[in-house]
Amino acid sequence: MKPDTICGVNAVAALFTNRPDDALRLFYLAERRDVAGPWCAVLAAARRPYRMVPAEELAKVAATPHHGGVAVIAKPRAVDMLDLRAPPRLPFLLVLDGVGNPHNLGAIARSAAFFGVRGLLLHEVPGAALPSDAAYRTAEGGLEFVSVWRTRDLPRALAGLTPHYRTVAATLEGEAVSPAALPRDRPVALVLGAEERGVSPDVAAACRRAVRIAGSGRVQSLNVAQAVAVLLHALI
Amino acid sequence: MKPDTICGVNAVAALFTNRPDDALRLFYLAERRDVAGPWCAVLAAARRPYRMVPAEELAKVAATPHHGGVAVIAKPRAVDMLDLRAPPRLPFLLVLDGVGNPHNLGAIARSAAFFGVRGLLLHEVPGAALPSDAAYRTAEGGLEFVSVWRTRDLPRALAGLTPHYRTVAATLEGEAVSPAALPRDRPVALVLGAEERGVSPDVAAACRRAVRIAGSGRVQSLNVAQAVAVLLHALI
Repeated sequence: MKPDTICGVNAVAALFTNRPDDALRLFYLAERRDVAGPWCAVLAAARRPYRMVPAEELAKVAATPHHGGVAVIAKPRAVDMLDLRAPPRLPFLLVLDGVGNPHNLGAIARSAAFFGVRGLLLHEVPGAALPSDAAYRTAEGGLEFVSVWRTRDLPRALAGLTPHYRTVAATLEGEAVSPAALPRDRPVALVLGAEERGVSPDVAAACRRAVRIAGSGRVQSLNVAQAVAVLLHALI
Repeated sequence: MKPDTICGVNAVAALFTNRPDDALRLFYLAERRDVAGPWCAVLAAARRPYRMVPAEELAKVAATPHHGGVAVIAKPRAVDMLDLRAPPRLPFLLVLDGVGNPHNLGAIARSAAFFGVRGLLLHEVPGAALPSDAAYRTAEGGLEFVSVWRTRDLPRALAGLTPHYRTVAATLEGEAVSPAALPRDRPVALVLGAEERGVSPDVAAACRRAVRIAGSGRVQSLNVAQAVAVLLHALI
């Protein structure tokens, strides 16, 4: 597996907080020298390289000009398949049914971490985003605070999660209720759909409940990353 | 002024709904022929050009591969200076203090339109985004449903708005209250800050109230576009 390249002060700080052993090499600009100091010390102790570099070299290492002055080459984080024999028991599980834009995935992970969500399940369908350099950057560290699993059969996974979670699909369908109308007596597995098509019909059918965010009707829907933030704030 | 290039089915549809006279030229892919039909009729009646083009030509016209199969060249929309002698009297005014990323501006306009907000005031500071092709595209039509004003002196503008609005800054400061704790008896002017620095101190000082979204502390803040969506949902 190719190593990850994780950019930006917040994302790199969260990596050093949560899994310092995965940091393989560090590059930073002179202006980031102070914040990078403790990370250099971690790498020095592990006999791993770190180096102050000029901006053009960092842009090359990071493969983006949006590096925020610091980049870590990191051991790639495996995204394990969800094991339905031992499903995670969390107060809240966020589930994405094919969200494709890595910036949306990153923004969603940031919101999830902000609201204290500990688990994220990704439906691995064609076009779905998995954690990537762009997602790590946009997540501003959020991906480091969330356990991520994947499944290739989300309807089946939801059936397996139903004994532990109230499964809730976010849809625009008529029978969906407002977040305030959802009962709060059980952990929730909240499913959001892909950017263009929303939650797919077989996934929606596998959920016990549906929730919707009421709007003015002027534009059809919120962007999925905004919808996640609204629903996490309303439900957690 | 250079014309705007507005891409994507939702953004173009909203333009033809709200200001069809501003559509100067239309380009679309064969696969968008059906949806483009009524727009072609509008342009034909106005003796303005429209044309089905191959993908590579559309990408050139749109100056982006993310054109969604349709692009309109449109009369640029002027963003008027806020006139404090006759300020807008709306139930809710959204105010951005220097949001710089055009995709954030677009996503915010989409959320504003979704929740029925009719007015958006932009603080025109260095680096602040004004409506642009990228913002129109991300807004998915949302910018067409929102009146947009700008000001070069937001603290003064907020002082002028105070007789009509409860001015509220979204901050991470200690004295800020949760959205549910804000009184609802007056129209609100809600101020969100720029991506990196938040609401600037002089702008926060010009607001009568402060609001914050409670988080887990794992990541410092939500992205501003997510924060807007959460606050609009909670306050409207």
